[in-house]
Amino acid sequence: MPGQRLQGCRSLHFNEDNGRFVLLAVLIILYLLCGAAVFSAIERPSELRAHGRWNGTLLNFSETFNISLQDLNSFLREYEAAIAAGIRADALRPRWDFTGAFYFVGTVVSTIGFGMTTPVTVAGKVFLIFYGLLGCAATILFFNLFLERIITLLAVVMKAVRERRIRNSGILPPGIRHDFSAYSLPGWKPSVYHVMLILGLSAITISCCASAMYTPVEGWAYLDSLYFCFVTFSTIGFGDFVSSQTAAYEYQSLYRVANFLFMLMGVCCIYSLFNVISIVIKQVLNWMLEKMSCLFCQRCNKANAFLGRRNAIRPGSKRRKGRLGKPPDSDGPCDSDTEGRRLSGEMISMKDLAASNKVSLALMQKQLSESANGYPRTVCGSSRHNGFSGGVGALGIMNNRLAETSNSR
Amino acid sequence: MPGQRLQGCRSLHFNEDNGRFVLLAVLIILYLLCGAAVFSAIERPSELRAHGRWNGTLLNFSETFNISLQDLNSFLREYEAAIAAGIRADALRPRWDFTGAFYFVGTVVSTIGFGMTTPVTVAGKVFLIFYGLLGCAATILFFNLFLERIITLLAVVMKAVRERRIRNSGILPPGIRHDFSAYSLPGWKPSVYHVMLILGLSAITISCCASAMYTPVEGWAYLDSLYFCFVTFSTIGFGDFVSSQTAAYEYQSLYRVANFLFMLMGVCCIYSLFNVISIVIKQVLNWMLEKMSCLFCQRCNKANAFLGRRNAIRPGSKRRKGRLGKPPDSDGPCDSDTEGRRLSGEMISMKDLAASNKVSLALMQKQLSESANGYPRTVCGSSRHNGFSGGVGALGIMNNRLAETSNSR
Repeated sequence: MPGQRLQGCRSLHFNEDNGRFVLLAVLIILYLLCGAAVFSAIERPSELRAHGRWNGTLLNFSETFNISLQDLNSFLREYEAAIAAGIRADALRPRWDFTGAFYFVGTVVSTIGFGMTTPVTVAGKVFLIFYGLLGCAATILFFNLFLERIITLLAVVMKAVRERRIRNSGILPPGIRHDFSAYSLPGWKPSVYHVMLILGLSAITISCCASAMYTPVEGWAYLDSLYFCFVTFSTIGFGDFVSSQTAAYEYQSLYRVANFLFMLMGVCCIYSLFNVISIVIKQVLNWMLEKMSCLFCQRCNKANAFLGRRNAIRPGSKRRKGRLGKPPDSDGPCDSDTEGRRLSGEMISMKDLAASNKVSLALMQKQLSESANGYPRTVCGSSRHNGFSGGVGALGIMNNRLAETSNSR
Repeated sequence: MPGQRLQGCRSLHFNEDNGRFVLLAVLIILYLLCGAAVFSAIERPSELRAHGRWNGTLLNFSETFNISLQDLNSFLREYEAAIAAGIRADALRPRWDFTGAFYFVGTVVSTIGFGMTTPVTVAGKVFLIFYGLLGCAATILFFNLFLERIITLLAVVMKAVRERRIRNSGILPPGIRHDFSAYSLPGWKPSVYHVMLILGLSAITISCCASAMYTPVEGWAYLDSLYFCFVTFSTIGFGDFVSSQTAAYEYQSLYRVANFLFMLMGVCCIYSLFNVISIVIKQVLNWMLEKMSCLFCQRCNKANAFLGRRNAIRPGSKRRKGRLGKPPDSDGPCDSDTEGRRLSGEMISMKDLAASNKVSLALMQKQLSESANGYPRTVCGSSRHNGFSGGVGALGIMNNRLAETSNSR
């Protein structure tokens, strides 16, 4: 509950959400600087070698056929323009026949953007902007719905597995119904680490299978195929390797369909994986903020230690995990005050309420009646503890912040 | 409330969430097919012209300098390899010095992936996979936090503007405090369309300003600059136009910093815009599903019309909007039954509860005590109506589905 703890420190006037945002930005900048240094060290020698090799080839060609470097350069400039139109020394598939254009729009809406095909006419560029605006938004929604579906599926499956294990070990509590229904373990949720593990293994499996297909068909090294899979599935899409570009393949239709399906599965899977990883990153950020606030607020804490509202309802699910039934131990040194919660998106999770060790039905009803009578500033104490509700998330963020998101899903 | 209505139709055994997912997938496929047809029609002639032009240039060069086409093609193949290493006829900036590598890692973590610079060594490719995995996840979190911050900011600003307008027009209800605090209009939220409009205008402004910079500095046409801005900010990143690639610019450092800042602002803004548009798309999908279910369930509806739980609490915010205080009119023809709600992520919004026209405190308290006493299957009737809570969203999705997301934000 770092939010609550941070806000308790009156000496910290910096809003917690802003703090997390700035901290993440600083960390990303540091990450970029480190990455730039490492990549520069790895790739710089190879770049210099390539330059030397090309200069040798250019001079050699120029001398052999007695062409001035100026003529050769203007020829190469024309070739660069031709490359932009999809021409290579070895014949490639047509860029803008229907299947080629379908591949192109697929890379647009998924934001992969290989760049093996790009519009060159003015009409094409203008149409792309409007087409991409709607298409990318629809695809983001598709990825988010996929994420929601896959998390739901994983939750149901993992719940069933857990129930079976509990049943087999014979320690099922008497209150729980003895069947395999997904709802018979109320309040249980899969761990984010388990979901991350499953999604990670799925991503690795899909990438390995796809690479096993690309390696013989495209003639790439297996590592290059894996690299292509990651670059594509993460929607980076450099375009240094692009599948299904040669003019003709054996089993061409089959390969194109398999290529499409692998990309679809891979992009959905890696997108979900990224989002689950970002939850873990968020937890790390919260932990760092908590530590930092603890360092800074030792003094103010001593003054406020006895002003805290000790009756505030807090979700006990974390404590319940290890020692069911035992009373919760005393709060941490930073947990001095629970006021100052924002009103926007105040929610109560029925399960969190019911599960809370400190739940007091009388207090809850008092607060409910207050809020029903038009004093919504006095809201339930656990309202700020519900994970991301009313908080972060590509769509979930706008939950209870925009009028329309409250009325319909 | 299409979820509730759909689930009321017993003849429709197809889960609503799955229905929306499949409907969106079908629509995206149709969208892709239409887009492929349009792009093919626009770009195909230009591709054929480019092929003809290049063949002419190739033959002309071959004849002028008396080079066999075979020799020329092998030379061009070597040039293609050199292009992959960042060599062009006109000198470009070094690829893998520190600033070049920084630009590269920026395109990786943002998933823009121009492809103007790509790792060619095995070590670089392997490092990229692990570096990108963490970096992309962190950047997705950054974009989501930015989205959350910008929506919060917009909500506060729009609330203040609205209050000022209400105050100036002199129709402020007597219960509302007469100051400009952001919380003095409880329950009011900005419309998704207003937020979309503001984000859209911001995106256009940023793109136009950035294009005004790129056009003279890079020597592109203004439309090409706009096209580059859209392709970059949407993280498609074809790589046909890439900024800051020439070896030397006037005010080089200033231009690089401005380039970085424009990309950062543009990507954040367009990402937020895409997410807001995807909410609108979701509403359209819900509307379509509702219409379809109404078409299919006319028969079952007649049988079930009198079985509905008429006491179920429903959020009245939509109805309240127009006619405050009037009783709600009768429910739609499809609203026959409100059972069958899923338990996962059941939430109550205090404000929705308090605002509901049908709110019954006694019923609420009964249900609360039931759930507190271990019967969480009987949950409050409005639990399924809270926008995306426990539902859709890049991170918000996992809200109340994963154990960790319940304990800390």
